[in-house]
Amino acid sequence: MSMLRVNGDRLWSTLMELGAIGGTPGGGCRRLALSEEDGRARDLFRRWAEEAGCTVTVDGIGNIFARREGTERAAAPVVIGSHLDTVPTGGKFDGAYGVMAGLEALRCLRDRGLETRLPIELVAWTNEEGARFSPMTMGSSVFTGDMTLDFALSRQDPSGLSVGEALKRIGYAGETPVGGRPFTAYLEVHVEQGPLLKEGGERIGVVTGSFKARYFVATVKGQAAHVGPTLMEQRHDAMVGAAALTLEIDRIGRSRGRDGRSNAPYLELDPNVRGVIPQEVRLSCDVRHPDAGEALAMETELREACRRIAAERGVSIALDQYFEFGPINCDGAMCALIRDTAKGLGFSQRDILTVASHDAVPMMDYCPSALFFVPSDTGISHSEREYSTPEQCQDGADVLLNAVLKLAS
Amino acid sequence: MSMLRVNGDRLWSTLMELGAIGGTPGGGCRRLALSEEDGRARDLFRRWAEEAGCTVTVDGIGNIFARREGTERAAAPVVIGSHLDTVPTGGKFDGAYGVMAGLEALRCLRDRGLETRLPIELVAWTNEEGARFSPMTMGSSVFTGDMTLDFALSRQDPSGLSVGEALKRIGYAGETPVGGRPFTAYLEVHVEQGPLLKEGGERIGVVTGSFKARYFVATVKGQAAHVGPTLMEQRHDAMVGAAALTLEIDRIGRSRGRDGRSNAPYLELDPNVRGVIPQEVRLSCDVRHPDAGEALAMETELREACRRIAAERGVSIALDQYFEFGPINCDGAMCALIRDTAKGLGFSQRDILTVASHDAVPMMDYCPSALFFVPSDTGISHSEREYSTPEQCQDGADVLLNAVLKLAS
Repeated sequence: MSMLRVNGDRLWSTLMELGAIGGTPGGGCRRLALSEEDGRARDLFRRWAEEAGCTVTVDGIGNIFARREGTERAAAPVVIGSHLDTVPTGGKFDGAYGVMAGLEALRCLRDRGLETRLPIELVAWTNEEGARFSPMTMGSSVFTGDMTLDFALSRQDPSGLSVGEALKRIGYAGETPVGGRPFTAYLEVHVEQGPLLKEGGERIGVVTGSFKARYFVATVKGQAAHVGPTLMEQRHDAMVGAAALTLEIDRIGRSRGRDGRSNAPYLELDPNVRGVIPQEVRLSCDVRHPDAGEALAMETELREACRRIAAERGVSIALDQYFEFGPINCDGAMCALIRDTAKGLGFSQRDILTVASHDAVPMMDYCPSALFFVPSDTGISHSEREYSTPEQCQDGADVLLNAVLKLAS
Repeated sequence: MSMLRVNGDRLWSTLMELGAIGGTPGGGCRRLALSEEDGRARDLFRRWAEEAGCTVTVDGIGNIFARREGTERAAAPVVIGSHLDTVPTGGKFDGAYGVMAGLEALRCLRDRGLETRLPIELVAWTNEEGARFSPMTMGSSVFTGDMTLDFALSRQDPSGLSVGEALKRIGYAGETPVGGRPFTAYLEVHVEQGPLLKEGGERIGVVTGSFKARYFVATVKGQAAHVGPTLMEQRHDAMVGAAALTLEIDRIGRSRGRDGRSNAPYLELDPNVRGVIPQEVRLSCDVRHPDAGEALAMETELREACRRIAAERGVSIALDQYFEFGPINCDGAMCALIRDTAKGLGFSQRDILTVASHDAVPMMDYCPSALFFVPSDTGISHSEREYSTPEQCQDGADVLLNAVLKLAS
């Protein structure tokens, strides 16, 4: 079968036009889930999808589906997906690239008048990042039944606004039921968020599995007191305990070399004012490793660190898991499809593990799913410096188009 | 001269009634400056002051003056003052006690039909704590000219609401010009915020001076990046830098034994979300010592720590001073007045330094001023556990009443 090529220039200009919504002076993008910017990006995506001949529907958690009919209208669709939301310090590629690569594939099919047997759908999932509303991969997880709709709609941002209310404000509280219908297959292309493909010079990374990751909230409790007259020896400073734990978490990840990851990026202080020793700090943290046993060993070290630091610093620390993912093992046939397609296009490739969750992760148990990466040219994401070249972006869309055609034919 | 005694029961019940505004289940008080609760506390104080025969005026920064005329109406008043606002985890005594002790003194004068030569004023200063709107001692500092009115009115809380707007909302954007008129003397009684009087068993602490305190913002800059795929070796985590600095600041204070204080209680993270390594953390911190030279040595250690941690953790750290106070030397004659009054009442006493600023600190350079403490029965403040007994509260009001009478006669 001969291979098709997407229009790389069109893909790039579309991606840049989308990235201007929430665009930052340094070349990044700030488009928090269900913000006014997210609403404008959704409106633009919807218009583009309709112009590409798709029928657009929105479900109860705000997932947007753009459907291109197949000759077998009753058949389960082949679905392409990713997300339009970003973290506060986001780039123009994470998430948006996957949706725009899917749009470019649909535009190519229309350009060429190609019919497929199966319907093809392109979905922009709601709130993959979990930056404004926790937890992450919200739209896809509600779709697959891993999260209830009521729970998701009730989640609040730091100002107390709920997901349900935020959806209404931007006009994306849709009426289509969430989930409950089969997919033939799911495909997601994403920019790599680390440096491995760039280091190795491969053009495509086939995700065969994931790190094991566990997420915790460490609740450090001390005693509120005046920052001035309270003797140092009589203090129970929750932030000092949290600071010691932050350093220990960083050390645990570093001690595993290039395979370890550990983070403590999100803090809530009570109170957080200049005149009072904080009485409580809630520290969101995680440990990740490709080997599940080693991830467990990291967790054990973390629990020991909590006990030791609590004793040393005169505070209490409770560690509660709130999320986990992996290790996932990706569908072998779907991995082979991506490998074969990339090979047919003449693209170098390697197998790779994902360190972070993606919408494809909840999809893995829902239908045969593939996740694959194109290189990050800077090796960094969730940053204004996030960047993939027009050629790197085209490569992934080429693989996506041809893989979808094989599945839908 | 024979000594008068206040009505201790009335003082206590008044203090408890005031403390119910913003009262917390654990016995504390949350009454942030210019909040709805602060507004209600101000309304109650105003009514009580008018019932005690005073004329109440409000100035442009919201300071409330309750004036009791003297026989020489044109003479500069003797002024009693403190504040009604609290920190988020406040108690019922810090600030409120000083204002209510002053009210009790005015009520006693009225009960006994005592006239004074000089007018007596009781002032509730705006925003002493600086917990919602930084900086602290705002109302008194604008009054003395140490801070401009425009600067104070433009300060914003974390939601972006300005002091000027907040004053209007609670009806305390007054029309009286701020400052510009002489005081004969200023007196402030406050609960001690540490354990020293309780430890020593003294009933009155005469503040003869203060610690030297310097306040800084440490701006730690790293690089935003995804918490998952970013290799540990490639990270520049601003929060890890801030955590290392927090521990070092704690160590610097502890290394000075009972004389040292150091704090890093207030953090702003950019961003503060679960998926991104923070690119910038602004850490508000301070060092304090009774010996100004030793305070400077602590600052030097802090600056060295910033340089060392920046190099070790791959971040940059800038340390900018934003506030300082002390060492102040209190007016000798005013200290002697408090000592003599306490002695006349038969109260044990000691000289003491204040570690924290108070409204009396800016007043020290404005007119002859006295600051004195009654014991904290728990040795702790800015906490629900903040507590002084009814007897301890009466002691301070007794000293205040008799000292004011001496000054105003």
